[in-house]
This record gives sequence, structure tokens and C-alpha cells, in this order.
Amino acid sequence: MSLGMTETKSSHAAYQELTERFRRQHHLRHLQAMAQWDAATMMPAGGNLARAEALAELDVLMHQLLMAEDIPTLFDTVDPEQLNIWEAANLQEMYRSWQHTNVLPEDLVRAKRLAGSTCEHAWRDQRHANDWAGFAKNLKKVVELSRQEATLRAEATRLSPYDSMLDLHEPGMTGVVLDQLFADLKTWLPDLIQEIASRQSGDVYCAPEGPFAVVQQEKLSRTLMDMLGFDFYSGRLDVSTHPFCGGVPQDVRITTRYSEDDFTRGLMGVIHETGHARYEQNLPQLWLTQPVGKARSMGIHESQSLFFEMQISRHPAFLKRIAPVIQQYIGKSSVTELANLQMIYSRVKPGLIRVDADEVTYPAHIILRYEIERALIEGQLEVDDIPDAWNEKMKAYLGLDTSGDFCNGPMQDIHWTDGAFGYFPSYTLGAMYAAQQFAAMEREISDLEQRLMQGDMSPVFEWLNHNIWSQASCFDTDTLITQATGEPLNPAHFKAHLMRRYLG
Amino acid sequence: MSLGMTETKSSHAAYQELTERFRRQHHLRHLQAMAQWDAATMMPAGGNLARAEALAELDVLMHQLLMAEDIPTLFDTVDPEQLNIWEAANLQEMYRSWQHTNVLPEDLVRAKRLAGSTCEHAWRDQRHANDWAGFAKNLKKVVELSRQEATLRAEATRLSPYDSMLDLHEPGMTGVVLDQLFADLKTWLPDLIQEIASRQSGDVYCAPEGPFAVVQQEKLSRTLMDMLGFDFYSGRLDVSTHPFCGGVPQDVRITTRYSEDDFTRGLMGVIHETGHARYEQNLPQLWLTQPVGKARSMGIHESQSLFFEMQISRHPAFLKRIAPVIQQYIGKSSVTELANLQMIYSRVKPGLIRVDADEVTYPAHIILRYEIERALIEGQLEVDDIPDAWNEKMKAYLGLDTSGDFCNGPMQDIHWTDGAFGYFPSYTLGAMYAAQQFAAMEREISDLEQRLMQGDMSPVFEWLNHNIWSQASCFDTDTLITQATGEPLNPAHFKAHLMRRYLG
Repeated sequence: MSLGMTETKSSHAAYQELTERFRRQHHLRHLQAMAQWDAATMMPAGGNLARAEALAELDVLMHQLLMAEDIPTLFDTVDPEQLNIWEAANLQEMYRSWQHTNVLPEDLVRAKRLAGSTCEHAWRDQRHANDWAGFAKNLKKVVELSRQEATLRAEATRLSPYDSMLDLHEPGMTGVVLDQLFADLKTWLPDLIQEIASRQSGDVYCAPEGPFAVVQQEKLSRTLMDMLGFDFYSGRLDVSTHPFCGGVPQDVRITTRYSEDDFTRGLMGVIHETGHARYEQNLPQLWLTQPVGKARSMGIHESQSLFFEMQISRHPAFLKRIAPVIQQYIGKSSVTELANLQMIYSRVKPGLIRVDADEVTYPAHIILRYEIERALIEGQLEVDDIPDAWNEKMKAYLGLDTSGDFCNGPMQDIHWTDGAFGYFPSYTLGAMYAAQQFAAMEREISDLEQRLMQGDMSPVFEWLNHNIWSQASCFDTDTLITQATGEPLNPAHFKAHLMRRYLG
Repeated sequence: MSLGMTETKSSHAAYQELTERFRRQHHLRHLQAMAQWDAATMMPAGGNLARAEALAELDVLMHQLLMAEDIPTLFDTVDPEQLNIWEAANLQEMYRSWQHTNVLPEDLVRAKRLAGSTCEHAWRDQRHANDWAGFAKNLKKVVELSRQEATLRAEATRLSPYDSMLDLHEPGMTGVVLDQLFADLKTWLPDLIQEIASRQSGDVYCAPEGPFAVVQQEKLSRTLMDMLGFDFYSGRLDVSTHPFCGGVPQDVRITTRYSEDDFTRGLMGVIHETGHARYEQNLPQLWLTQPVGKARSMGIHESQSLFFEMQISRHPAFLKRIAPVIQQYIGKSSVTELANLQMIYSRVKPGLIRVDADEVTYPAHIILRYEIERALIEGQLEVDDIPDAWNEKMKAYLGLDTSGDFCNGPMQDIHWTDGAFGYFPSYTLGAMYAAQQFAAMEREISDLEQRLMQGDMSPVFEWLNHNIWSQASCFDTDTLITQATGEPLNPAHFKAHLMRRYLG
């Protein structure tokens, strides 16, 4: 009995000590997040090298702190039986995070951060200059280091090299599952794109023609963020070359970019990032400093942004609600008429650029990237082979030629510059999860369409908060989604959503 | 002989290892500086607590890193004889920095950061509400922790408690020297203020009356920053409640505040911060990551901002050069006529607010704060006694009554909220150093006035770069100033400057 009490006490103390270590990681990650946001929104070009060095130093330091010699013993000492459900999940997430860190030597962490910063920074100009040769040189270094990383991760996790990278962004997901999901998509998506294209070929609509004053676009953006529940007391909206959601849950920083020629893209961009932001802003307060308090995965994160953008905001009922708001800030015209907005926001057309793609052609962009990045990491493809592979797949999936057009081909995205291999699949997983969540919500909220039309979003937010946001990382993705929707990931909902919206 | 070689090698290795430790501190300080800049310029209110916790964590971490057990041995192992002049100075600065860190226990570091954040954050509202009681409660905690800090520092440095705090901002300066300098000032300053006031009593000038568009004020600010050599590739101008110069040498962030009612103050604020910025932007590239590469002291830093503001920009010759520029952005009017601008920018009038004070009455604000903060730290005065002491000294030095007016009295500054006791004297030391530098420059550049009138600032910048900026912390302040001006600090230059400008 006294032995039992000693064990209890030491298990408790070890758990507490682990939470302290991860609390420290959390606070350092705050500074990292803010420095990264600043680099994308505020930093003058001359600050880049010093910033990269500072961030690399922080990476190494956070790495060293988690590599402290006593941590394995602390993990061994904790008895999971003595933890409640959140504590037990936290222990698991701490262990996952520690393992992800532990497998990489410090030199590799630093080298990858510096190579990534160099590649990304040079890419900003190289992309405009269509300078593939210059870009490829830097990317080779990043790929080389990422392969080293994947090999080490694979050894430690007993996953394949690519799966071990995937696990960083989408725990539990594997290349085998993705192959199945994407093989299925490939069987029906090209035909669906064709069918929608032929159906829409007769549509006559007014394309936006600027100039649309940026100041009005920003006011409209803030109004819609308000309607969608963004908490400006704990967040900001700014401008960056590539829209993103950054910062920390208590201070969420979303960004967009405005085009004077076309307000419609920037607007949906803001709504997309607002979805990410609401997830962050509504993670459980009690657990914010701990791994279990973080968003479940990048796929689930993307499901929230796509839920806001695709399921809600492009929904005909909600578009009807916001059309007058758009007209209020942008002006009444043939462009901002409801019927025209609905045509703009449901237009399907194969294009070169992923971030400009509609939700029907979008998965083709992801499958292409997934296939290339997996082959890159597994050593079946080299950086020099990317342009040909890209062109071949663009032809096959979307019927487009990108030969020689590097800036609108493999140089369009930021992900690989930083070595974030394994991230892209999250986008399409997110689209699938979002469709599945919306289908479940429709079953539970009988007057959902009516609510959207009235702009009464409270039941929608309550559903998301109850089922997704407040759950953070307490459950694995399958469990989270099953509890929320009654079944694990089922891509049929995504297909049904596309059919209904575009052929319904 | 072989022993000698071993010693040589180990001295070299120890020095290198120390530079590595301080390089890490430097990179972490980068993240700290950016997070602090962000908190003052960008952060929404809801982010405050998380930010304070993150910064406190970083403080503690930087403290722990410098407290590593092997550091004393590394210092012991380095043989200064084997270092060149910059390395030897760097060793000294490293030791100074280490000693400053080493004397404080980690708990005190964290407690002071959190108490400071709490006090400062609450102060922002309390000041507007004139809520002395609320403020005093938080300040007591800060003072208590600062007294603990001063006691520990005094024990380690064998300085008095207040001198040990002064040493953080102005190495080598002591309360004894300040007492002499300030006693001298008190003998002639009140009479001088009187004399100038009576001489200016007949002046008829047009006070600025707005609205002056903020966007035009900002354009004017940027134009003058350009003229004064601010490098926008490596820096930014933004808005904050309290103007400051932050960031890092490769990315200097200065701030100002614009008033629609009066463009004249904001303008000089920008010029003032530009002086700080140029010092930072021109510190020696080779030494940026090391303690010897940092600005010499806060007094020298302030000498650069006051050199730009008081010696250069309010100089009649330079005002003549920039009057047309001001007119270009603000418009021609009786306010922006050269003669009127000269009257505005040489107006002397006792006032309640330090940051709005002219250069003649400014030292009175500093002496008052110095006397109060020294007594606070040395335990001769309590927080509850501050308002009476403040009022008494304002009456004695400037003939003004502040009883009950806390927000324009002891609640006007941010310094004490954070526990930055020992900082205030830097302002008046800076004014003295600036006057002394200008006097030396006048001797060396025979056509200085002509140059200022033409806006040809190159000899001015060359002088400052050669004598101050490029020297960083290679020499102690006395040596730096003696090399630059031929003598150590001599307050007679400040007096002469005031006499010539205001009674000349």
C-alpha cells in the first residue's frame, strides 16, 4: 500500500513535470508563431537573414529542451491508469510530440530551417522570374534534408518514409489509405469536371471588373468575419502575399490579399481563414498550453476553413444572406446581383493555380502534388524531374499544358520550399471531412438552410464547437469524426456534396 | 612550451564557446524584441496575457542558459592577453552581461516580468481614469521586486543599490556623479527658464490648428527619415501609443503617434527615433551577434536621438532646409512659414508632461524622477509617498501644481511600470553628450552650418559613424566620448548650447 502511494505520487509528479516541459514549448512556440507572422506581413526584406537565424536558433533550443535526458524516465514513470481522459490524451500527445522531436539530430533541425528559409526567400523573386534552375538548386538541398528527416522518422516510427512525414500533419493517415481515396476520386472526378463544364458552358455571367477599392473590400471582409464570429479582441486581419492563419489561440492572425480587379477571391480567402481562426479561438482554454489542447490535425483544421468557405459561404442560402452586404460595400451592379454571385461562386474551370481552383478541380491539384512529393521523398523522383512529371499529370488530370511555365507550375506553392512534405493531402482530406460534417449537421439541424438564409449561425457554431473545436486533440481523428458524424472518414459525402451543388 | 600551446588553444576554445553562448542570447533577444514591438503596435488586447507569459518564459530561459555551470570556468580559461582589442572588449561585455544575469534567481526574473506586464497593462486604462490607487497597488509589487533586484545586484557589484540599477543602463555612471551634474543644473536652470520665458513672452506665433491629415504627416515623416538616412530596406515606421525604437539592427522598428491637431510634435518624434535607428542600423556588422557589437549605453543612445532632434533638426539652418518640405506635405500657411516653425520649435514653457517638454525644461523632469526613483529603490520613499513628492518637486523645479492630477503626474511614464529604475538619467546624460558631440563636430567641420542649410548631411553622418556608431561597445563611455570630443563628459557644452540657442 505504501508502495502504491509512492508510485501514485511519483506518477503524478512525473506527469506534472512533463506538462511543465510542454508548457515551456508552448510559450516558445508563441514567439515563433509571431515572428513567422511578422516575417510574412511586416518584415522589411533586409531583416530576413537575421530572422531566419533567430528562428533556427529557437528550433534548436526547443529541440534541445525536449531532448533533456530525464524525459524518457518521466514518461516511464507516469501511470496512464491514474490519469483522467484529457490527461491521458495529453500524455499520448506529449509522447507523440516528443518522439517526433527526439528522432532528429540538432544539426539536421538547424540545417533544414536554414535551407528552408534560404529556399523560400529566394523563391519569392525566382517565381516572378520563372527561374526554375535557380529554384531547383535550393530545393535540392531542402529535398535532401527532408529525405534524411523522413528516413530517421521512418526508422523510429516503423512507418514508411513518406508516411512518417504525413504523420506530422495528419496523425494516423497513411499513403495506402490516400492511394485508395485518390484512386476512387480519379475514377469519377475527371468525368464530373467535364459534365459540369458542359452544363456551365451556356452560363452568361458578369465577371468582376475593377477597380474595387481595397478599403471597401477590407470593410466588407471585417463585416463578414464579424458575422462568422471572428473575435477581434483576440485576433487581427492583415495582408500578406499568401493568405494564412497564424498567431496563437489568444491572438489569431489571419491574412488575405486584395485585388483591385476582383473582390470575389479575396473575400472567400478571408472566410476560409476565418474558419481556421474560429477553430483556434475556440480550443479549450484549460488546455491551451498543452499538446492535447492543440487542433487535432491539419486535415481537421482544413475541414474547418473549407466548412466556412465551401459548405457555408458558397451555399446558395448563405450567399442570399450576404449578397446585400456585399452590395453595401462593393456597390450594386450586375456583378453583385445574387444570381451573378452564385454563378461566380459555383464556377468550375480547370486552371493552373491550386489556390485559385474551385472545389471540384481542387483535388486534382492535390493528387498531383501528393504523387510527386511522395516519389520525391521515397527517392523515385529527383528535383530535376519535377517539371516533366508536373506537366504530364496536369495534362492527365486537368487537360492543361504547363511546359516551361514553372511559376504557374511547380513553383507556385510555398510548402516544398520549407520542406513541408506530407502537408498537401490535408487539403483534400479537409474537403472530405467538411462535407461529412455538413451532412451530419443537416441531419441534426432540421431548418439548417433556413438558418443560413437568415444568417442565424448559432446552431452551426454550436455544432462545430461541441463536436470539433472543444475536442481539440482529446481523441484521434477517426474517433473525433465518428463521434461527430456517426462514422469514420467516408468520402461518399464529398462526392454527394459536389453532385448536389453542381449537378443538383 | 607545449604547456603554453595547450593554454593558448584552450583559451581560444573557451573564448569561442563563450561567443557561441552569447550568439544564442542575441538570437533569442531578436524574438523578444519583435514580440515586444508587436505588443506595442499590433497586438489585440486579448493577446496580452499569453504574450506576457511567453516573454516571461523566454526571460527565464535566457537566464538559465547564461547560468550554465560551465560558464565561470570558460571565463577563467580565457587569457585576455591573447585577444585583439575588439575581442578583449567583447570578453569584458560578455562578463558584464553574465554578471548582471547571474546575480538574479530565476524566480525573481519571472516574477518581475509578470508583475511588470500586469502593472503596465493595467496602467494603460488606469492612466486614462486617473486611478492612482489602482496603479499604486500594482506598482508596489514592481517596486518590491525591483528593490530585491537592486539589493542582489548591489551585493554582487559592490555598488549601492541604485547605482547597481543605473549600471544596467549606463555602465560606469553613479549616483554621486549624477548628484553633482544635477546639483549644478539646479543652480542655473530655473533662472534660465525664467529668462527665456520673459524673452519669449512677446513672441507672436501661429500655433498649429488641425486637422492635419495623418496620411500627409506620414509621408512627410518618411521623407525626412529618408533625408536623415534611415534605411527602409532594414526597418519600418509604425504607430504606437508611446513612440519608441525597437527591433534589431537589421530590422529597426521605429514608431510615432500622429495628432490631427498638431503635426509638429509627431514630426520631431519621428526624427528623434530616427537618431536611435541610425545608431542601431550602423553598428558594426561583424559584431552584431556579440555583446561588444551593441550600443554603448542608453545615455549614448539617447545622445544620438537628441543629436538628430535637438542639435540638427531644431537648428535654424536645418529648419530652413526642411521648411519647404514641410510646406510641401502639410501645405503653405502662416503655421508652416519658416519664422513661425522656428518659434514653435524653440518655444520654452514649463509643462506637466515629460515627453512634450522642450529641451530647456526637460532636465527638470529628469531630476525629479531621478530623485524619486533613487529614494524608492533605496527605501527612503514608499509608493504611497510618490504623489506628494512629485507635486513638491514640480512646484520647486517648474512652478507647477500637479496635486490630484496623477495621470499628468507620476502616472505619465511607462518606465516604472516595468521596473526600469535607473533609466531616466539617460535622457539628460544623452542631451549633454549630444551637445558635446555637436561642439566637437563644429570644430572639425568648418562649414557645418552651411551644410545643414543645404541638407548635405554626409559629413555629419560620417562623423557620427566614425566616432560613435562604428565603435559600438568597444570602449567604455568615458573613452568613447574622449576619443570623439577630446574630453570626458563635460556638461558645460549643454549649458553653452542652451545659452546660444535660446539667448544667443
